[in-house]
Amino acid sequence: MSSRRRSADQPSRATITDVAREAGVHASTVSRALNPATRGMVTEAVAARVAEVAERLGWRPSTLAAGLRTRRSRSIGILVPDLVNPVFPPIVRAAEERLAEAGYVTFVANTDTDPTREAMIVERMAAHLVDGLMLASATETSRALQICERFGIPTVLVNRRQPGSRHGTVVHDDLRGMALVIAHLHGLGHRRIAHLAGPPGVSTASDRLRGFRAALTAHGLDAEAAPVVIAAAYSREAGRRAMEALLERGGFTAVASANDMLCLGIYDALEAAGLAVGRDISVTGFNDMPFVDRIHPPLTTVRIQHAEMGRCAADLLLAELVSGGQGEREIVLQPELVVRSSTAPPARS
Amino acid sequence: MSSRRRSADQPSRATITDVAREAGVHASTVSRALNPATRGMVTEAVAARVAEVAERLGWRPSTLAAGLRTRRSRSIGILVPDLVNPVFPPIVRAAEERLAEAGYVTFVANTDTDPTREAMIVERMAAHLVDGLMLASATETSRALQICERFGIPTVLVNRRQPGSRHGTVVHDDLRGMALVIAHLHGLGHRRIAHLAGPPGVSTASDRLRGFRAALTAHGLDAEAAPVVIAAAYSREAGRRAMEALLERGGFTAVASANDMLCLGIYDALEAAGLAVGRDISVTGFNDMPFVDRIHPPLTTVRIQHAEMGRCAADLLLAELVSGGQGEREIVLQPELVVRSSTAPPARS
Repeated sequence: MSSRRRSADQPSRATITDVAREAGVHASTVSRALNPATRGMVTEAVAARVAEVAERLGWRPSTLAAGLRTRRSRSIGILVPDLVNPVFPPIVRAAEERLAEAGYVTFVANTDTDPTREAMIVERMAAHLVDGLMLASATETSRALQICERFGIPTVLVNRRQPGSRHGTVVHDDLRGMALVIAHLHGLGHRRIAHLAGPPGVSTASDRLRGFRAALTAHGLDAEAAPVVIAAAYSREAGRRAMEALLERGGFTAVASANDMLCLGIYDALEAAGLAVGRDISVTGFNDMPFVDRIHPPLTTVRIQHAEMGRCAADLLLAELVSGGQGEREIVLQPELVVRSSTAPPARS
Repeated sequence: MSSRRRSADQPSRATITDVAREAGVHASTVSRALNPATRGMVTEAVAARVAEVAERLGWRPSTLAAGLRTRRSRSIGILVPDLVNPVFPPIVRAAEERLAEAGYVTFVANTDTDPTREAMIVERMAAHLVDGLMLASATETSRALQICERFGIPTVLVNRRQPGSRHGTVVHDDLRGMALVIAHLHGLGHRRIAHLAGPPGVSTASDRLRGFRAALTAHGLDAEAAPVVIAAAYSREAGRRAMEALLERGGFTAVASANDMLCLGIYDALEAAGLAVGRDISVTGFNDMPFVDRIHPPLTTVRIQHAEMGRCAADLLLAELVSGGQGEREIVLQPELVVRSSTAPPARS
């Protein structure tokens, strides 16, 4: 970030009058166009022309410079796809704690996995002076990251990857997680395993689907023939509907789900069909979100390190905020399998 | 909000020079002191003196007026005590949806039921131009509301009351909720009923404790003799510890808990003590938070209207944002009892 400012002892620098003359507008219009708080008072065309001229002449208004100095709101925005999914709050809490130690407060926003909504939230957060952003919401098509770059706001991705991104990223080894699931089900004797996949465009969904197929192949099973149904969202309701579709198709003794939230819907659908989880159909989750140890039957799942993920993301962001731009790291945490009672040897049929 | 501004055609109004002279500072210091973005550049004593003089002379800087005009960030802050408690996300989601229809984005922050942290978050949100605030976090000693008033930010309370507050408030009839619980337990034959109370300073905790005692008395039971243990927080861990304390005390066949989150810890403590929920000790919750229908045994609890609470709070806030200050309403929603398997007739002893 440039520290150049117009001042009396740098007579060679352009002045606001130069910028105004070159852009063909009044000096006060230059001020307005370059101040995020007042930019809405000029047309987009004027704002763009003024920005271009100011950039070309190397001019930065002192008020903007002051704004940049006081920009430090000591606030961090955290975007999550769905607060109702209990996997996110522990990640957020851990990040918050680490950031609070460094004097930052955190604001959380829900995107509903909607890239348009996500972009709007990022723009508003960026315009209202958050110092950094943590995106647990990024989809493969998110424009959010470009917006962060445009505003020069340090950003890290958490529990989501974006292929080709240069941003700091904290994820788990989802392929290994799925390998643990399939090895467990295979060990119990399951050979016909279905996958209830997560929604399109979400990296955990595509990584876990790839992991599912790779693990079947590694055990000599036919990955192409395995039933896969894609859930419309990571929600209980979407899980129920996808499970109903899987049940209509049939031909499996176990379901490996892309996450725990979907499993609540899987339980609902199996109960409605008069099937017992574990005894009739084995079910596995992913995330070990809070409370799945207390559902009935307790869920066999892949435990991710919620708190560690939040702390790592906070550290990546703080490093960038302090040292200014070295977020190009991908941290991959290791998951582990937690065996409970939702899995059992296949029923004889 | 005053619309008075300094202008040439209002010669009787005070000028910035008047304010500066009266406060004994330079005119530029007056500007800085009255602009939230630059206030940090002057000492607190100077800022306070300038504010006092400006107020007294009825002067408002044009830049501040401009700031107020562009203040509309179309953002609403929502403060919750603990995002990990699943009771809050559905409230937040419903409020968000209603606010999004009106073009507002929402930012959520966690206060940890810590009034100091809450005050800091409110100050930062207020300084960074949220248009309104929704506090699900307010404790009986929160300074947050005074801060909101100082910044002139429309604020509503949701799922929390503050005695004597003039702010719009949406709560449930907690006394009636507890009456439903005690009537149910009494009907099953319980006469020795304990209460696991929520943390001090939280309105739901004190209202439910009052409701517990009133309902015992209404059934001819000795409210003063009933065992009550106060949990340090609305958390699973605090619930477990409080339940361990209750078990040491003994003398009850049922526990009415102040909320569902505590029940997860009650289940943990009873399991560790070799006691079966329902058969040995009946347990009731409060809130009907997501997933308690899937825990084992499914929890008998008081259902509050999560989504309706969020929508009502959003409507109160929008009414205030649009019409400017008429939030003095308390909406009290009705709870209902949901009977599941965590309650049963008392064990013969």
